[in-house]
Order: sequence, then C-alpha cells, then structure tokens
Amino acid sequence: MKPSIPKGTRDFSPAEMAKRNYIFDTIRRVFYTYGFQPIETPAMENLSTLMGKYGEEGDKLLFKVLNSGNFLEKIEDSRLKMEDSPNQASDAQTTSPSSTSLNRLAAQLCEKGLRYDLTVPFARYVVMHRDEITLPFRRFQMQPVWRADRPQRGRYREFYQCDADIVGTDSLLCEVDLVQMIDTVFRALGIRVAIHINNRKILSGIAEVIGQADKLIDITVAIDKLDKIGLENVNAELAEKGLPADAIAKLQPIILLNGTDDEKLATLRSTLASSETGLRGIEETEFILKNIHALQLQSAVILDLTLARGLNYYTGAIFEVKALDAEMGSISGGGRYDNLTGIFGLPGVSGVGISFGADRIYDVLTQLDLFPSEATEGTRVLFACFGSAEATWCLPIVSRLRQAGIATELYPDAAKMKKQMSYANARDIPYVVIVGETEMQSGNLTVKDMRSGTQATLTPDELLEKLNVCPQYADGHCD
Amino acid sequence: MKPSIPKGTRDFSPAEMAKRNYIFDTIRRVFYTYGFQPIETPAMENLSTLMGKYGEEGDKLLFKVLNSGNFLEKIEDSRLKMEDSPNQASDAQTTSPSSTSLNRLAAQLCEKGLRYDLTVPFARYVVMHRDEITLPFRRFQMQPVWRADRPQRGRYREFYQCDADIVGTDSLLCEVDLVQMIDTVFRALGIRVAIHINNRKILSGIAEVIGQADKLIDITVAIDKLDKIGLENVNAELAEKGLPADAIAKLQPIILLNGTDDEKLATLRSTLASSETGLRGIEETEFILKNIHALQLQSAVILDLTLARGLNYYTGAIFEVKALDAEMGSISGGGRYDNLTGIFGLPGVSGVGISFGADRIYDVLTQLDLFPSEATEGTRVLFACFGSAEATWCLPIVSRLRQAGIATELYPDAAKMKKQMSYANARDIPYVVIVGETEMQSGNLTVKDMRSGTQATLTPDELLEKLNVCPQYADGHCD
Repeated sequence: MKPSIPKGTRDFSPAEMAKRNYIFDTIRRVFYTYGFQPIETPAMENLSTLMGKYGEEGDKLLFKVLNSGNFLEKIEDSRLKMEDSPNQASDAQTTSPSSTSLNRLAAQLCEKGLRYDLTVPFARYVVMHRDEITLPFRRFQMQPVWRADRPQRGRYREFYQCDADIVGTDSLLCEVDLVQMIDTVFRALGIRVAIHINNRKILSGIAEVIGQADKLIDITVAIDKLDKIGLENVNAELAEKGLPADAIAKLQPIILLNGTDDEKLATLRSTLASSETGLRGIEETEFILKNIHALQLQSAVILDLTLARGLNYYTGAIFEVKALDAEMGSISGGGRYDNLTGIFGLPGVSGVGISFGADRIYDVLTQLDLFPSEATEGTRVLFACFGSAEATWCLPIVSRLRQAGIATELYPDAAKMKKQMSYANARDIPYVVIVGETEMQSGNLTVKDMRSGTQATLTPDELLEKLNVCPQYADGHCD
Repeated sequence: MKPSIPKGTRDFSPAEMAKRNYIFDTIRRVFYTYGFQPIETPAMENLSTLMGKYGEEGDKLLFKVLNSGNFLEKIEDSRLKMEDSPNQASDAQTTSPSSTSLNRLAAQLCEKGLRYDLTVPFARYVVMHRDEITLPFRRFQMQPVWRADRPQRGRYREFYQCDADIVGTDSLLCEVDLVQMIDTVFRALGIRVAIHINNRKILSGIAEVIGQADKLIDITVAIDKLDKIGLENVNAELAEKGLPADAIAKLQPIILLNGTDDEKLATLRSTLASSETGLRGIEETEFILKNIHALQLQSAVILDLTLARGLNYYTGAIFEVKALDAEMGSISGGGRYDNLTGIFGLPGVSGVGISFGADRIYDVLTQLDLFPSEATEGTRVLFACFGSAEATWCLPIVSRLRQAGIATELYPDAAKMKKQMSYANARDIPYVVIVGETEMQSGNLTVKDMRSGTQATLTPDELLEKLNVCPQYADGHCD
C-alpha cells in the first residue's frame, strides 16, 4: 500500500517549517510587543457553536466529526431511513437524498465539527470566560482551521490563521494601534505594503444618499474598475446593474474621488452631508488617518472607497494589505465589528481585529527571496564518527557546545567519510569536526569549514569563539 | 443559548498559554541544540493510514471525520440498513447494532480521521518523503492529537505530544543522545528526575530462559511489587498467574536483582547465559550506561527491569522518566523500534524516539512552583489615557518602546483612573505611565511602579534604561 494524505492537506518538511516558523515567530513577537496575549481553543467545537455562523455555504464547508461509540444511538430512526424517502421509495438505490435530509442526518450522526475560523471560537471563548477576562481584552490566536473547500492552487483544507483582536472598547485608538501593528509586522518581514482603509459607515452613507442600499457591492465593484475601463464604462455598468440615472449622477463625485486624503474626505463630507451614518464614518476615518500620519509609518496608508470586505460583518473601519512588489491578493485584512458575542448571548462587546495570511505571506517572501539565511539555519556543527572510542571521546565536547546553545550532532555510525560529508552537505551544516587518533592525543579538533573547504586545528574553546560564543559564558547557557 | 466546548477538550487562557509556551519553548530549544528538525503533518489522516495501527481498542478511539458533500454516496445500501438487522427486525428501535456493523458503517461514512499520535503520521511521512530525506533523520514534532477516550482528571480528548526521533540508524549512540537530551530538558525546566532504562531484549531473554514468553507482562508487574508486598507475595502472585514452580525458581535472581548497574548486569549475564537475545540486550545496555555515566548527567539513570512499556512496539532500549519531587506517573518515555515504516511498505528503517508529556510536566511545574516569573510576564508598560490629545501625544513614545522590544499598551479610553489602574493590576503590568497637561508641557513622563507603589518623573530615555534597554540601541531593535 502506498500511503497518502487527504487532498487539500499538507506535510511540512524541515525547510518549509523553518520558513513558516520565521513568519509565525515574527508575527508573534510583534503581537507581544503590542500587548496581545495568546489563547488557544480546541480543534473541535460543538456544531451548535459553529452552525449558522458562516452562512449556508459555510455550513456545508464544515468538517463534521462522527460521534464516538455507538454513533447511531441518537438517530431518530435506527435504520437511518431518509425522511424524504417516501416519494423515492421505489428507486432508493439510484436517487440521491436531498441536501436538507443530508444535513438533518449529518446533524444526528455528528455533534462536533472542526474549527472553521478563529473568530467564532473567540466569540464563544469570550462569553464562556467573561468572568475571568478584564476588558479591553487584547488576544491573539495562531492555530489551524479546516474548510471542506474544493482544493486548488493556494487554497487548502487545513491552513493557519493568525488573528489579533481588541474587544470590549469602541475607541478608535485601537484601529490606530492595529494599522501601526500591520506596519511593524511587514517592516520586520521586509515586505513593502500598502494598507488600504475604508469605513463601512461611509459605504452605508453612500448607499443611503443615492437611495440604493442593496446595490452597495455592485457600486464598489464598478468604482474599482475606473482605472481599467474608464468613467463611461463604469457608469454603463452601474446602469446595467439597475441603478437609476439620478443615483448614478449623484455618485459621480465619489467615483472620481481623488487628491489627498484630506481632499477626498472634504468631497465625501459634502456628498454625504445628508447621511448621519456617512458623516460618522468620515469622522472616524479622519481620526484614524490623522493619528496614523503623525506616526510616520513606513507603509503607505490609503483611503480606498472600493474596499468592501465582509459587508455583513464589519460595522466600522475595514483594512486590507497588499504587497507592493508581488502580484498577490490581500495578505492581511480586518476591521471593526459591533457585536461579536451577541449570538452567544452577550451583547455590547465591540471589537476590532486583524488577520495575517501566513500562506500568502510565505509566497510573497519566496517570490521576493526575503527569507533571511539565519531563519533556515539548522545544525551548525557535525562531529564525524570514526568509531566507538572516538565517539565516546567526543561526547563531552558535543555536550559543551549544546550547552552553549549551538545546535550540534554526532554522526551516529562509523560510516565512510564521504557519506558523512554528504550528510553534512545535505543538511547544510557549516562545520564538520573530525576526531581521530591524532586529535584524541593532542586534545585539539580538526574543524572543516564546509563552505570554504578549509580546515583548521582548534581547541574546543577556539571552536566556541569561531561560533561567536564567548567560552567563559558558554557553560550553563542552556540552563 | 449557553455556549460550551466538547467534553475532554480545553480552552487555554493567556496565563495557561504563557506556562505551556514556556514548556514547549524550552523543549523546542533543546531539540534544536541536539540537531532535531521540526516537521508538521495534517490533523486529518486517511483512515487507511490510521486503522489497525493502535490495536482494536485504538481503532475505537479514533475520531472519524464525516465525508464532506454527499456522504451517503458510497454507502452500499443507500438506506443505511444495518447488515446484521435481520435477526433484530422485530425490535429495531431498542436493539443496538453490533460493533462490527457499526465499524463497517463508519468506514463507509468516513474516509478521514484525526491524528491519534505522532508516530504513525511520522512513519507515513518518512515513507512518502523518502526521496527528500537524508538518513539518519532527526525530526521533532509538537502537535495536538485526539483520542475518543472517556475523559477524566488528567486525561483529555485533545492534547499535545512532543516527540523527537532519530530514524535510519541502529547506532546505540542515539540512545545515549536521547538520554542526555532528557537530562538537558528537565535540567532546563528545573525538575529533578530519574531516568529508568530497560531493554526489550533482556525481557525477551528472561521469558526465553524460563520458557514463559507469553507471561512477560505478568512477570514485570509482579516484580514491580517487590518493595511493597515482599518476595513471598511476589512468588505467590507469579504462581497464581500460572508460572510453574521451576520457572519461578529460575526467576529468583532477577526478582532480587540489586547492587550497582555493573553488579546487576553481571547477575543478568549469568542468568541469561543461554539466551542470545538476552545477552545482546545486556551488551546494548552496558554500552548505553557506560557512555551516559561518563557524561555525568544531573539525573539519576537507573537500570529498571520492571519497566515494560509498549512491549509489542519496542525492540531494544526503553526509557521512562519520573519526577523525584512530585507524585506523578511517567512524564516522558520512549525507546527503540526496529521497523517503523514496514507497515507502509518501507522495511529496514530502525529508529529510537522519546516523547515528552506536556500536560504532566505542566502539573509537576505547578505543584513544585517552578514556573519562572519571566515566563508569565506579559505587557510591561501601560500608558494611561486622559483623552484624545494626550493619547496622540503618547503614541510615538509607545511606538518607540515597542520598537525596543518592550510590550507596551495605551489604554484606549479616557476611563476613570481607578478603572485603568485596576486593568493594570489585573494584567499584572509592572509600570503605568501617566501623561497629562504637565507632562505634555515638560516632555517628561510620570511613571508609576505598580509593585512598590512609588512614582517617578522620567524622560523616555530614562524609562528605557529603567526597563534595561540601552536607549542608543533601542531604536530599530524590532526590525
């Protein structure tokens, strides 16, 4: 039998792990400096927690876990008769059951499902732990999620999410904090990005002013094409989508919006003068942009009215991050939501969050060759093995290097030198230490630099110095 | 509705996460210095990979994932009729289906299951990636596993395993390496332990010599009770288990085995003289102990013939670690296996591995109060908030501290000072910075030390110094 793994899932080998950990460690370190604290939730949640939170499409994409033990126990009819089978009775073998009856049956066979994202489990967590949590609560979470999506290039059935949220306050300083944090993360990774920001309230205001609340997505999609297809075609597309001529006329200043952020906001202020919600969105955006500009971030922060992610979910600021030097969709995104935990019976918890897409960041770093060499460094010293006596002689020195924090291995077999050197090359180990009769008598080590090919005779202390560890401080470093 | 999580699973809150990460980080750091490289495998494996690898009991404890889409498609009978139902036809509602037919049905509903341990996925990984791997391969893996066990105190349905294995060599230097690594891990954690070692071949030799191969577990269980119940009762128990008198007589030197390791091995050598396997086990153990003793580990390493874990699995050395200062089962264990990957079609891959029990280590550290305070330290500086102007003034300083790697927050609302101080206390934040009119004019910060209750007026540079960061080197630290 040839083993395989489920489609859409991945093994991560050491070289990939080193790069992934570089990303996760960088993001985690920044999260900590911004005062975020980690939590973890179980991979399995009750289906009652998950169902109905991601729309009908999302429900279908949940991985459901079969009840353990006698999983048929709770099935209403122990023969598992399909509830809509009467009209199929004559043809049960060939007619497939309806999706409703499948859902009903799945619900009886399964009580648990795999986490679909980190937001719903976080909301559930906040409600369950409300008595322990001091608000505002800054939490981050980096864990895999699972979706029964059709696998394709760049889309997996298991992937990590890296989320940071601040809940329990509607202060706009949190938005400022998050935008600044996005900047810090991508600066640390060396990726130049543009941070696009918009506000759900501005979008609502636009829809309100032109009297077309249900056309919001059509409008943002059309505006987004201005650069490519020109004003005339944008207007034609809006008409095609059913917008009346007067609404399209009112939209013109917004479609043609340009200039500095201040100029854009001034135009919006006059266009949305009659919408209270719209004006609130403008004020919020002004506050955020003013404070961000004062911080002189490295990233460009762009007011982008075409940004319209998760319209049903976000209620205030929305963010999206795009890499400037690589063709890639958004590599990070988030926004403010007004009622995270209402669905679990705890109203009034507002929050704002950001999610980093580790897989896409990985692809950008690969494309731009930005992984630092230290990030992928493994073992630094390999002691070659000539036999049992030599190995025994080497062990205390191996031990001392390790205590100094240097990743060190002793090749375990007295194999041919060529094989041991190949191993060092395959593992990209920079130094090989050779100990034979001569070395055991002199107490010195023959150290081969695998990159330059040169050899040197060094005492263990000199080897430590070569590896940038002060011998005096080496011992006990690992304690 | 009141949300809950599946029984046997856990949420980890920030305080627990800090302690767990301290354990994982310590183990991971040691793994790296010993030359181990991380891999990760998917949470879901094909059931064909998992089934039959953990015994009949293990198969029952696998969490199975319902096929997505139309999961009934592959069921032989679309009505899901139980195959053994004919003789239950009259009483279908009350009779539960047999476990065989349940297994058969589950196999048709589900093709995937959740990882039950890290060993089988690792074996599958080695076979699938054999062309990329350079042997010997030193890998570690720290991921959760899932078991549908009955939850009870200390036993969970989701828990982390931390495994390190060396495969592709039968060199006993690997056993030496692992024992040394166990010592390093527990020294780093501050836990005093005894490392018990035994050898499967010695146990086989004993069974061979007394002609009772099938009574091996009974024998080790009985011998283990010597200290508690005395020789007479041990012998009585052995007789009760069906050992003939001459076998019990031959066992006496082994039951009464004591003295130094050398003395024990000498006794064994004469008792097992007629068993080739037994003598090989003695030789292996001698080599391992000799090399370990030369390294002068901190932990006691004890030859323990009563140690008999995973008899069907291990083929050479076996290890188990016990904390000396806490009542707790084994907190780490492992051993050598001769044929890891044979079941997946790749014979001849020998290996030796060790697994650290994170939950039990957590409990030991808690009992002995050994978590270092730095391990649980979160945000170090909170800037109090008096209003929008003050906040804006503080932002660049907050930013500078963060860039110096200091976890810093700005309280996001101009709440009452009492509330902000309570927040700092609840979060155990050691310093609160207060900035009002006076500070904005002078450029100095009022810094309150929350532990001593004292206040000081400091420049931002002085604050950095107080936090042990050299102001000159502070900027750009996070880049």
